Amino acid sequence: MNEELLMIPGPVPVLPRIRNAMSKPMIYHRGEEFRAMYEEIVATLKWIFQTRNDLFVLSGSGTCAMEAAIGNLVRKDTPVVSIANGKFGERLVEIGNRYSDNVTPVNFEWGSPIELEEVKAAMEEKHPQVVTMVHNETSTGILNPAEAIARLTRKYNALFVLDCITSIGGYEVPVDDWGVDIAIVGSQKCLGAPPGLSAISVSERAWKMMLGDNDNSESRERPYYMDLIAYRDSFEKGQTPYTPALPLFFALREALEVIKEEGMAKRVERHRRLADTLRSAVTNLGLSLFPRLNDVSAYSNTVTAIKVPEWLDDAHLRGGMRERGVMVAGGQGKLKGKIFRIATMGNITEGEVSRTIQALESALRG
Amino acid sequence: MNEELLMIPGPVPVLPRIRNAMSKPMIYHRGEEFRAMYEEIVATLKWIFQTRNDLFVLSGSGTCAMEAAIGNLVRKDTPVVSIANGKFGERLVEIGNRYSDNVTPVNFEWGSPIELEEVKAAMEEKHPQVVTMVHNETSTGILNPAEAIARLTRKYNALFVLDCITSIGGYEVPVDDWGVDIAIVGSQKCLGAPPGLSAISVSERAWKMMLGDNDNSESRERPYYMDLIAYRDSFEKGQTPYTPALPLFFALREALEVIKEEGMAKRVERHRRLADTLRSAVTNLGLSLFPRLNDVSAYSNTVTAIKVPEWLDDAHLRGGMRERGVMVAGGQGKLKGKIFRIATMGNITEGEVSRTIQALESALRG
Repeated sequence: MNEELLMIPGPVPVLPRIRNAMSKPMIYHRGEEFRAMYEEIVATLKWIFQTRNDLFVLSGSGTCAMEAAIGNLVRKDTPVVSIANGKFGERLVEIGNRYSDNVTPVNFEWGSPIELEEVKAAMEEKHPQVVTMVHNETSTGILNPAEAIARLTRKYNALFVLDCITSIGGYEVPVDDWGVDIAIVGSQKCLGAPPGLSAISVSERAWKMMLGDNDNSESRERPYYMDLIAYRDSFEKGQTPYTPALPLFFALREALEVIKEEGMAKRVERHRRLADTLRSAVTNLGLSLFPRLNDVSAYSNTVTAIKVPEWLDDAHLRGGMRERGVMVAGGQGKLKGKIFRIATMGNITEGEVSRTIQALESALRG
Repeated sequence: MNEELLMIPGPVPVLPRIRNAMSKPMIYHRGEEFRAMYEEIVATLKWIFQTRNDLFVLSGSGTCAMEAAIGNLVRKDTPVVSIANGKFGERLVEIGNRYSDNVTPVNFEWGSPIELEEVKAAMEEKHPQVVTMVHNETSTGILNPAEAIARLTRKYNALFVLDCITSIGGYEVPVDDWGVDIAIVGSQKCLGAPPGLSAISVSERAWKMMLGDNDNSESRERPYYMDLIAYRDSFEKGQTPYTPALPLFFALREALEVIKEEGMAKRVERHRRLADTLRSAVTNLGLSLFPRLNDVSAYSNTVTAIKVPEWLDDAHLRGGMRERGVMVAGGQGKLKGKIFRIATMGNITEGEVSRTIQALESALRG
């Protein structure tokens, strides 16, 4: 029997060569072998992020990196504008509220695009020091207009935190060209590695805001485990401040090798093509995509959100697909039961997308 | 050639059967297979912790669990007494200072035992709500008097946070009998698993303090990634609040199988015997143990700290051992160059300890 095909928006299927990299014996995490591996991983991630900013790998999931971004930048009185049109945008608001009393959410309907004019009005009114947004909103299958929001943020002289957890590796995300001050990615999404690691890039402007007038590395307001200043200091020695999750580093290194072998341009094109194939098939089957978007390029290429037809039960449909060997995701939060989601992330192939479409078609027939 | 033998206090060598468990394909992290695995891991850890308290596995290192313990319990004005006689005790002070303005460190010389009378005096004066201590101080090779401090803490009606990162799995740590409100362990120490996970147990009294009068799960003061209330709510569904580091869970499950097969009594006895063998050999070679302890049982059975003789260079000695295939650890912080440390943690064997002693003897000869 075929192994179950995970078409959920992370954890994605991990190639055997990447999984097998984890059976390597442990190494000394403060030695030369670790240093060389960490530096290689960081160099490749900088290439993928298209950045010259500092970049670190955290031993924690994407949420850990979200908190690292906000918890290091934001103080109790920092004005933050937090743009949200889905579950993960709202998570940035929640994290912001743990650190600042001055977070202004700019909310859009889940599944609706972000309107620049409304964001602009909020910036005009609130003079934020930090603006947060999710690039690819996994809960609704929308790619948000990161470049435009970055430009706006820069115009209002704020720092831009962009959650690229499910975009980087599947899209071109030119962090420096756009002017993203903090960008983050998760290991188990478009990078095709197992879950448990995340990466974060930090601009000069972000360091300035964090450090303020003096390099007060004992500041009480930053979280400790994801203290970026500690990460920076340790990186100079080729180390992480706390023990790194070594097997996941071995796997990430191998996953990045796979990306280098494919090349980013081809990888992005593959993600585009597979999502396009999936969207066409879905609509040909008489189903509708969940987001209502005028701009077709705003439909995510890494996760496709589909309305559950009224005549169908969501759990039944997904159960039917699962019986046919394909696991897809349901809706989250208020979209539970109303949509289902199919990811095309990481090292997914044409064949796997075909298998998914067949399973969907067959499950729809009952 | 033999694989390098890691005799550092974590990451410890990981048995092939545990490492190979990580090459399994990814699974759906919100499904039945994950739930069954997580519940099995938690049940076994509760047996090892000797606790009926709630227990969770965090996708982060021991430091992540240290911050989870303190960050969830302590508010800005919470009086904390933080006992320290080494680097990791001091780390608890540092983390405490990020969350409370009212942390009283009770410091002892690195390498000296904790004096109950001094701790008692601090409690008498400060009326702490929370007391923190490291059980096994890895930086100096001392086992601290957890049971006595737990009793004292209870007498003064405070909560006791005990960092058991390098004791649980190598010592009997009867969490409930002693009355430890929050106990934590790291995966890559005495449990013999790879680094990247930690576990935390939480007593009823600790929940009461966290929740206060109402179950305010949106409190702004707790860290987000290690929010224990979110962990508790997710556990009811057999889930973690954020994506778990799946391969490390696979490995931890296998590592716990190894522990069940050996049995805890035998495992603790093996740790005792191996440390005893090592301490005897070290003193027979004319070296001295670093800590000055009247109570011989306070020398750690999981890590042995040895003075670097004046006629010898620390880096040279450790380099010599490494050339002979054995990696040991240097001193940390102010002990750098003054001591070296040999761990006997996890699934280490008599043969590996012999190999270590031979390497030390040979390196000492030049």
